[in-house]
Amino acid sequence: MQRKILRTICPDAKGLIAKITNICYKHQLNIVQNNEFVDHRTGRFFMRTELEGIFNDETLLADLDGALPEGSVRELNPAGRQKIVILVTKEAHCLGDLLMKSTYGGLDVEIAGVIGNHDTLKTLVERFDIPFHLISHEGLTREEHDSQVVDLIDTIAPDYVVLAKYMRILTPDFVRHFPNRIINIHHSFLPAFIGARPYHQAYERGVKIIGATAHFVNDNLDEGPIIMQDVINVDHTYSAEDMMRAGRDVEKNVLSHGIYRVLAQRVFVYGNRTVIL
Amino acid sequence: MQRKILRTICPDAKGLIAKITNICYKHQLNIVQNNEFVDHRTGRFFMRTELEGIFNDETLLADLDGALPEGSVRELNPAGRQKIVILVTKEAHCLGDLLMKSTYGGLDVEIAGVIGNHDTLKTLVERFDIPFHLISHEGLTREEHDSQVVDLIDTIAPDYVVLAKYMRILTPDFVRHFPNRIINIHHSFLPAFIGARPYHQAYERGVKIIGATAHFVNDNLDEGPIIMQDVINVDHTYSAEDMMRAGRDVEKNVLSHGIYRVLAQRVFVYGNRTVIL
Amino acid sequence: MQRKILRTICPDAKGLIAKITNICYKHQLNIVQNNEFVDHRTGRFFMRTELEGIFNDETLLADLDGALPEGSVRELNPAGRQKIVILVTKEAHCLGDLLMKSTYGGLDVEIAGVIGNHDTLKTLVERFDIPFHLISHEGLTREEHDSQVVDLIDTIAPDYVVLAKYMRILTPDFVRHFPNRIINIHHSFLPAFIGARPYHQAYERGVKIIGATAHFVNDNLDEGPIIMQDVINVDHTYSAEDMMRAGRDVEKNVLSHGIYRVLAQRVFVYGNRTVIL
Amino acid sequence: MQRKILRTICPDAKGLIAKITNICYKHQLNIVQNNEFVDHRTGRFFMRTELEGIFNDETLLADLDGALPEGSVRELNPAGRQKIVILVTKEAHCLGDLLMKSTYGGLDVEIAGVIGNHDTLKTLVERFDIPFHLISHEGLTREEHDSQVVDLIDTIAPDYVVLAKYMRILTPDFVRHFPNRIINIHHSFLPAFIGARPYHQAYERGVKIIGATAHFVNDNLDEGPIIMQDVINVDHTYSAEDMMRAGRDVEKNVLSHGIYRVLAQRVFVYGNRTVIL
Repeated sequence: MQRKILRTICPDAKGLIAKITNICYKHQLNIVQNNEFVDHRTGRFFMRTELEGIFNDETLLADLDGALPEGSVRELNPAGRQKIVILVTKEAHCLGDLLMKSTYGGLDVEIAGVIGNHDTLKTLVERFDIPFHLISHEGLTREEHDSQVVDLIDTIAPDYVVLAKYMRILTPDFVRHFPNRIINIHHSFLPAFIGARPYHQAYERGVKIIGATAHFVNDNLDEGPIIMQDVINVDHTYSAEDMMRAGRDVEKNVLSHGIYRVLAQRVFVYGNRTVIL
Repeated sequence: MQRKILRTICPDAKGLIAKITNICYKHQLNIVQNNEFVDHRTGRFFMRTELEGIFNDETLLADLDGALPEGSVRELNPAGRQKIVILVTKEAHCLGDLLMKSTYGGLDVEIAGVIGNHDTLKTLVERFDIPFHLISHEGLTREEHDSQVVDLIDTIAPDYVVLAKYMRILTPDFVRHFPNRIINIHHSFLPAFIGARPYHQAYERGVKIIGATAHFVNDNLDEGPIIMQDVINVDHTYSAEDMMRAGRDVEKNVLSHGIYRVLAQRVFVYGNRTVIL
Repeated sequence: MQRKILRTICPDAKGLIAKITNICYKHQLNIVQNNEFVDHRTGRFFMRTELEGIFNDETLLADLDGALPEGSVRELNPAGRQKIVILVTKEAHCLGDLLMKSTYGGLDVEIAGVIGNHDTLKTLVERFDIPFHLISHEGLTREEHDSQVVDLIDTIAPDYVVLAKYMRILTPDFVRHFPNRIINIHHSFLPAFIGARPYHQAYERGVKIIGATAHFVNDNLDEGPIIMQDVINVDHTYSAEDMMRAGRDVEKNVLSHGIYRVLAQRVFVYGNRTVIL
Repeated sequence: MQRKILRTICPDAKGLIAKITNICYKHQLNIVQNNEFVDHRTGRFFMRTELEGIFNDETLLADLDGALPEGSVRELNPAGRQKIVILVTKEAHCLGDLLMKSTYGGLDVEIAGVIGNHDTLKTLVERFDIPFHLISHEGLTREEHDSQVVDLIDTIAPDYVVLAKYMRILTPDFVRHFPNRIINIHHSFLPAFIGARPYHQAYERGVKIIGATAHFVNDNLDEGPIIMQDVINVDHTYSAEDMMRAGRDVEKNVLSHGIYRVLAQRVFVYGNRTVIL
């Protein structure tokens, strides 16, 4: 008995759920959980089917391809533990939360390595017996540095790359190398306060709520598909530094919950949006 | 072209989604939206299917009955505008929100009448051109009073009865007359502060958050299936009266959002719990 | 026995609280509630003192002026019921909430009149026995229209002007006529989605949280000092219209809570920020 | 230049703020921040004054004692780093968050030791170079075990004792030994779900929101003064185990924020309530 996740995106049509679930039924697979969504504005159908049984991937996928309309995308992946690489600079809180959860429960993930452009967090990573790789950006162009980082990630071959307060802008080559596989935490409630020093921007604007956003990285800084957001209340007594301190708990929660859903294969990227089933 | 909602509860089994959606497909019905849930603890399957097309209710239900396992419950109802009766005592905020939303948008419902055991809210109701019925409890036993109220409701024949801060305990006969069709707003975050004067209880206990709960009414006071809950922060500067004032906005939001979901036929009652699809 | 609010803004200095409270003490006034805040970044001191007793305003203020540093602003106003004028266009929810609360409790305010540039909400306003004034913008320049509105407001002489989904941009003359006395509700979590159709912008961006902002109006659209903000979660199933519907409850809550604090004389405007004591 | 916190609780009277701030002024102390609250129901006055300057504690306190009414309590303590001991059983998340924050920022505290009745968390504690003490309860009566734990804590002499998911009920002697100095995290939104297995209770009741509560421990289990509470939404898809997992982030946030405020000397215990200034 295995458990796998079937994910389907295709043009909406009558009978889609019937066709897909019929095929699963014929394959003697049990549907543990099924979720679907139709975006009526664009006529797109999304379905996540959690299946249990004995799988013949090849014939299952062939049967699906025979039944689904043209332009369909479907993928079948094992449920369960996946592998991430985390990129960091100097801030510990998001990284620490991921280390804690992968070690002591809460996030079923293998942290296969942490890469820093500074060595500030080396000790923390090694406390948890995980390899830390320093790739300093000093003396390198952005392209050279990113290329070294990409090469190292490729040798580890993770499912996802997590930017846990990695304070560098990725080159387009880096981004394109891991399409929809780089997850970033931005320390504001996007699209408010795009760019640098969002807490200082928030302080200047006098907002009464601050937030954080987990999103996939695409070519436009801070504009990739949003996975999750959360906020907390602040007031006039908060300096920018107080916002920063208070915001850290939001950042780490949003990032780890976002990763949790991505790893559960619940997050579908569609244009610049996510559908979370 | 019509739109109807098919709701199914049955013992879980392989192929259920395939069977139900196949039948819909054969009937040339388009699935506008489909949601399902399996409670693996009890082996129950829940499904809400929003269908569009030309319906032959009789043969559709017969086909479903032929396919579904024993012990299944399925119902097919038109989507759209339903009818409620609201019971009130003296507090205006929940009633006012429902009057506003049914008149100016936000809740597609017909308020077919308001019954009060006091006439305090008569003017408000009549401002919105809706009939107000006073059934005073004075000089009547609880049974007599409830019986008069039930009789009046029966002549109106609403889909649901809404207790919008109706400060009387219903007799078991009243409750049994409208099974899973009476919606109450309780002014606390249940199961905290069951019973009378919850804000005073909350004040005494020194809580930092207060809330409200919309639930179906069953025989045990404040213990029916919960539909929706929400909370707000309070602090030491709040007296019980301040909590009451601040709580009113939570109460009215929770009640109207709860009703919104019930009217959309999204709320399934199962034991003492709700599944909301 | 009267109750008044003393509000002080001045450059920070040693002994300020002692000086001010000493003067109150000498005047035999009881401090019912006192709140103060020092903005250490700019060296500004803010204090709100709720006083009870028999007031000699002239000597009290003279004593304060003798004690406070140069550049101080202090005002002494009676606590209690104030007067507002509400400006609307076609949407009923914010207006309805204010009408309900001023009539049935929750907001101790006199709504002295409602002005609309359409007559859509005339009936609603008159249901609550409050005068509705139509000043159509048709055939008028923006300046002409605003000038008529300002003239009418001036005859009513309210403490504050509330824009309850008034879908017109005010002329600078209008804004300057009521400095820090115009309260607007913007249907987004500012500074995200400034300008028109924020829910459509939010939908396009694929955000997972939407919000609303109550703020004072200044010359720059949507950029005045923020009084209050709140948010709710949304997901991929929400169309822009769903966001609009769900957002209405946030808008009306934020607006009425914001007004509540302003009327309690708790909101100090300072630069483009608010201090709320 | 030193920074100290003056905390005053006394019967309310005219001129209290003037008297206290006058004395500070005469001592040439600068008030960095001042907050006060009057509980008009019980006639109690609370004030927290953050002072900067050169302190003569003895004369300052003597001056205050001369000015304050009978029945006053006042304390003057240095601001800044304090010392805690943490008690744990087997769950890592609250402990881990405190270790991260004390080491990498967010909580200015010295964790002077961790005591476990199991050794499950020994490795985690030692990863952060903090002493872990195992005091197994096996073969001991509750009194014997608690007495050993109390003795060990006394040798460390912390400012506060933190129960970070310590799954044992303290003896009355333990509690009385550290009055208002033991902080517990309860994994429910108190007073809902007092006692054991609150997530299972929450699941059974079918609630739509779960929470956590940080409170001081007194003689009645789960009934001490509440410091902080927070909640998250859940739905029918959550098993008790899912609630447990999701609840962990709320628990750790509530506990560390609660401790943050206690360490900042902002939390006043008064009867069974807290005033947080």
